[in-house]
Amino acid sequence: MGLIHMSFLSKLLGMPTDINVIIPTYTREDSTEGTIRDPYIPGMKFQTLWLLHGGGGDYADYLKYTNIELYAEENKVAVVMPSGYNSAYTDNPDGALYMQYITEELPAMCRSIFPLSPAPEDNIIGGLSMGSGGAFKIAMAYPERYGMALIMSGGGSPITPEAAKLFDSENYVKRLGGFRLPILKNDGQEGTVNDGWFNAKRNVDEGRPLPRLFFAIGTEDSFLVGHQRCVAYCRELGYEVSSIETEGYKHEWRFWDRILDAALSRWLPLRRSYLLPQ
Amino acid sequence: MGLIHMSFLSKLLGMPTDINVIIPTYTREDSTEGTIRDPYIPGMKFQTLWLLHGGGGDYADYLKYTNIELYAEENKVAVVMPSGYNSAYTDNPDGALYMQYITEELPAMCRSIFPLSPAPEDNIIGGLSMGSGGAFKIAMAYPERYGMALIMSGGGSPITPEAAKLFDSENYVKRLGGFRLPILKNDGQEGTVNDGWFNAKRNVDEGRPLPRLFFAIGTEDSFLVGHQRCVAYCRELGYEVSSIETEGYKHEWRFWDRILDAALSRWLPLRRSYLLPQ
Amino acid sequence: MGLIHMSFLSKLLGMPTDINVIIPTYTREDSTEGTIRDPYIPGMKFQTLWLLHGGGGDYADYLKYTNIELYAEENKVAVVMPSGYNSAYTDNPDGALYMQYITEELPAMCRSIFPLSPAPEDNIIGGLSMGSGGAFKIAMAYPERYGMALIMSGGGSPITPEAAKLFDSENYVKRLGGFRLPILKNDGQEGTVNDGWFNAKRNVDEGRPLPRLFFAIGTEDSFLVGHQRCVAYCRELGYEVSSIETEGYKHEWRFWDRILDAALSRWLPLRRSYLLPQ
Amino acid sequence: MGLIHMSFLSKLLGMPTDINVIIPTYTREDSTEGTIRDPYIPGMKFQTLWLLHGGGGDYADYLKYTNIELYAEENKVAVVMPSGYNSAYTDNPDGALYMQYITEELPAMCRSIFPLSPAPEDNIIGGLSMGSGGAFKIAMAYPERYGMALIMSGGGSPITPEAAKLFDSENYVKRLGGFRLPILKNDGQEGTVNDGWFNAKRNVDEGRPLPRLFFAIGTEDSFLVGHQRCVAYCRELGYEVSSIETEGYKHEWRFWDRILDAALSRWLPLRRSYLLPQ
Repeated sequence: MGLIHMSFLSKLLGMPTDINVIIPTYTREDSTEGTIRDPYIPGMKFQTLWLLHGGGGDYADYLKYTNIELYAEENKVAVVMPSGYNSAYTDNPDGALYMQYITEELPAMCRSIFPLSPAPEDNIIGGLSMGSGGAFKIAMAYPERYGMALIMSGGGSPITPEAAKLFDSENYVKRLGGFRLPILKNDGQEGTVNDGWFNAKRNVDEGRPLPRLFFAIGTEDSFLVGHQRCVAYCRELGYEVSSIETEGYKHEWRFWDRILDAALSRWLPLRRSYLLPQ
Repeated sequence: MGLIHMSFLSKLLGMPTDINVIIPTYTREDSTEGTIRDPYIPGMKFQTLWLLHGGGGDYADYLKYTNIELYAEENKVAVVMPSGYNSAYTDNPDGALYMQYITEELPAMCRSIFPLSPAPEDNIIGGLSMGSGGAFKIAMAYPERYGMALIMSGGGSPITPEAAKLFDSENYVKRLGGFRLPILKNDGQEGTVNDGWFNAKRNVDEGRPLPRLFFAIGTEDSFLVGHQRCVAYCRELGYEVSSIETEGYKHEWRFWDRILDAALSRWLPLRRSYLLPQ
Repeated sequence: MGLIHMSFLSKLLGMPTDINVIIPTYTREDSTEGTIRDPYIPGMKFQTLWLLHGGGGDYADYLKYTNIELYAEENKVAVVMPSGYNSAYTDNPDGALYMQYITEELPAMCRSIFPLSPAPEDNIIGGLSMGSGGAFKIAMAYPERYGMALIMSGGGSPITPEAAKLFDSENYVKRLGGFRLPILKNDGQEGTVNDGWFNAKRNVDEGRPLPRLFFAIGTEDSFLVGHQRCVAYCRELGYEVSSIETEGYKHEWRFWDRILDAALSRWLPLRRSYLLPQ
Repeated sequence: MGLIHMSFLSKLLGMPTDINVIIPTYTREDSTEGTIRDPYIPGMKFQTLWLLHGGGGDYADYLKYTNIELYAEENKVAVVMPSGYNSAYTDNPDGALYMQYITEELPAMCRSIFPLSPAPEDNIIGGLSMGSGGAFKIAMAYPERYGMALIMSGGGSPITPEAAKLFDSENYVKRLGGFRLPILKNDGQEGTVNDGWFNAKRNVDEGRPLPRLFFAIGTEDSFLVGHQRCVAYCRELGYEVSSIETEGYKHEWRFWDRILDAALSRWLPLRRSYLLPQ
């Protein structure tokens, strides 16, 4: 398996940024499963999981706290893990344009540098917690680009007053170094690219493609109600939705590791092979 | 959690080499568990797991294929992961001196650069497969330095003729790029620093300290018999031995990830805290 | 030479961040200069250069664009390179607290993890462009902590109306992805920790220690006038100031590489050796 | 500029290995030179410098000790930097197959993952010291694949008895951790893929393409005579050879940094642009 740490200058962030990228390469199994497959076919491409971290995280979270490399290698899918910090994957009017970066500059760069298929059915947008909100709103804003979304422990429901209260509490704020999450500053986002709830309906109304949605959450997670509301809303609108609620798990890495294994190995309708040029 | 990738020139390898090191640093939990603990006390030190990869692996294996960072962070233990490639952690008479590197230069460097306790009870040597052989022989050769050994899916039994045949088979050799493992070239190692079986008895005979031994293996692993022989041998000699045989697992990363979690969270008698200067 | 890439969670930034750190380790020369020196003495420490990048840069800039590793290795000085992006190393009232991070959390963490001397005479704060402004204001705000400052291609003069106009021009803003530098938003900073000009005088008035100042700039650099004003101002106040103006250089990496070589090899009054415990 | 650190499993080395790769990406200058160029054109490719380190080095040497990233970025050339340690880029009959790895597996992998042009005129093999020997012999063994070779401080002359004596001296061996360089073990290499001197003539005799050769050395370098012999030999055979001998430089990084700048910026006949699909 090829594990890539890349540092480059982002135009839309106005600063350098790091990504981790997994590209399936030669594995021991390639030699031992009878015939030896050639792992490097010119023109081959990979399905791609664009994987967004949670609030207060960065590009290295999944590498540190999950075995995403193992699952990606076993299932021959590429994974791109960018940094969004505490941005809620939203454009900052006075600063870094995270929404545009994630949906425009990052795919353009990665597809010109790495062998990633641009076809919508080969692109999965995924994330956990704050990243699940990012994944949901991105899938809804650009349903022509992403065939699937993997929404772990959060999702697209508008922030409830209870959650807003939690995020804004002294204890929570202290954890983040004394400042408040921009997650909450979604005033004026109604009907924009950041309003997944709105765009979910727009896609149906306008006959746009509807990405397949995969939701997963632990039953002990305080986002459970938001998860269930979003699942119900999307089903009602006509989206094809799978939802997993796993007993006993909270908002925690052992859950996300387990779901990533299940999603890449079985749950998502992936090709689990490289894609050869036609 | 602090994840460190370090590149430096090794004198005993005669070349630069890379290590991954985990040093527990500030975590979210430090702020939310009531009192805010200060994560950076001058003079603090950490217990250290020296973690050796398997044959044909390198310093990045555990980072890629296990969640060792999560377990290290939760349990406040430092982890050092060096490269030994296919050396069986043995000094190459014509080249890199892996045994000396792992047991002398690496600890000397790491303890002068990172806050690692040198006390034997704070040092665990561990590994999987080829690395479990390394961990066993190192613990037996230097019982004054390592208070514990974590031996996953392998261990210290002399290579059986069956295993030697497997390692030397065409199919196996093909996986390694067409060459034979130096693991097998243990001619003339009897009674040397590389002969864990021999040194295990020497330690008893000479009244040296006896490290506590933790063995783990899956019941479907072809090393199971070697594991059991080594466990029996060490118990007979008077070592304090814990052994886990887990149903259904083979020689595989999902097993090692699970054992590392158990070992760091519960199994090993760790301090699970930083060590303050007296 | 030990090159370290570290990723960790910063409390004061509210997110993970990366640093590059250079720690002098064994070099070829250690073996060939007659007597073989032992590179790893327990308790040894290093003088430290805290090196700040310019606007729109990050922790990896100096590694990519200069040979700082070579100069650090030759002169046995440790170097810590953090990320400040476009923050002007100023606390964001609604976000990441870069000034506090650079001056409190980063030194506390690095000194508890790496062998860095905390003595003020062993600490140099340095930077280029935006980072030179950071280095100047930090040296002036905390003169008890940093014995020297290395100020490359910029410095501490208040932004002139001309520079503000440049930074705010369409062309300049376009380069940064369409947004304006917070560098300019120093309204209300008069007399605060961010006002180096003010604190330079305060240090004299209050009889505080005065860091030694080393300024360098190319004669073709548009910051030349600001550099000269700051040099004159500090000399007038009684600071010990060295200033280099190098013919023909602009605001460019080849200049900064050259100055770093000169500064570490000859210019700064460094120990050029590790520091042994007394 | 995109700086990539990649870790992957090599089949021909029988172990994981690391590479650093530079891929030109968006730079500040792309926005400020009047028209804003789109840095990411689907199908674009880059000329590639395959850059080999010297004896006792690894993939990170050039990153640490030269500004190769700056020169690559300015001149829009990709650079791939693999590890060869002390192998002399020769296949080890009992181990890692470095010659095959560098000339077969590495290009196949890199061209399937990164946008690198496979055309011979777009491929430069280069190196310093031991790596210059590697570059020379590879260019001579596979003249159909590499249009140019950059040979810094060494080259293709058979090891002289004097050099062999130096390499084998106690003092030299001590620097490498007490073992002798395999560089010298070229018994039986006459007429093989490792015999650049032999293949240089073969290429002429068989009418094969003749790569353009660029030699550079400091006048204080002890390899100067070998350099001059190789230059004279290649010219005599009819190769197009450029040679630089720079006053006052030894076998040292400041020289190699300077030559890399000159070579990428002016000396080599590069395209200094990305290559668009026809």
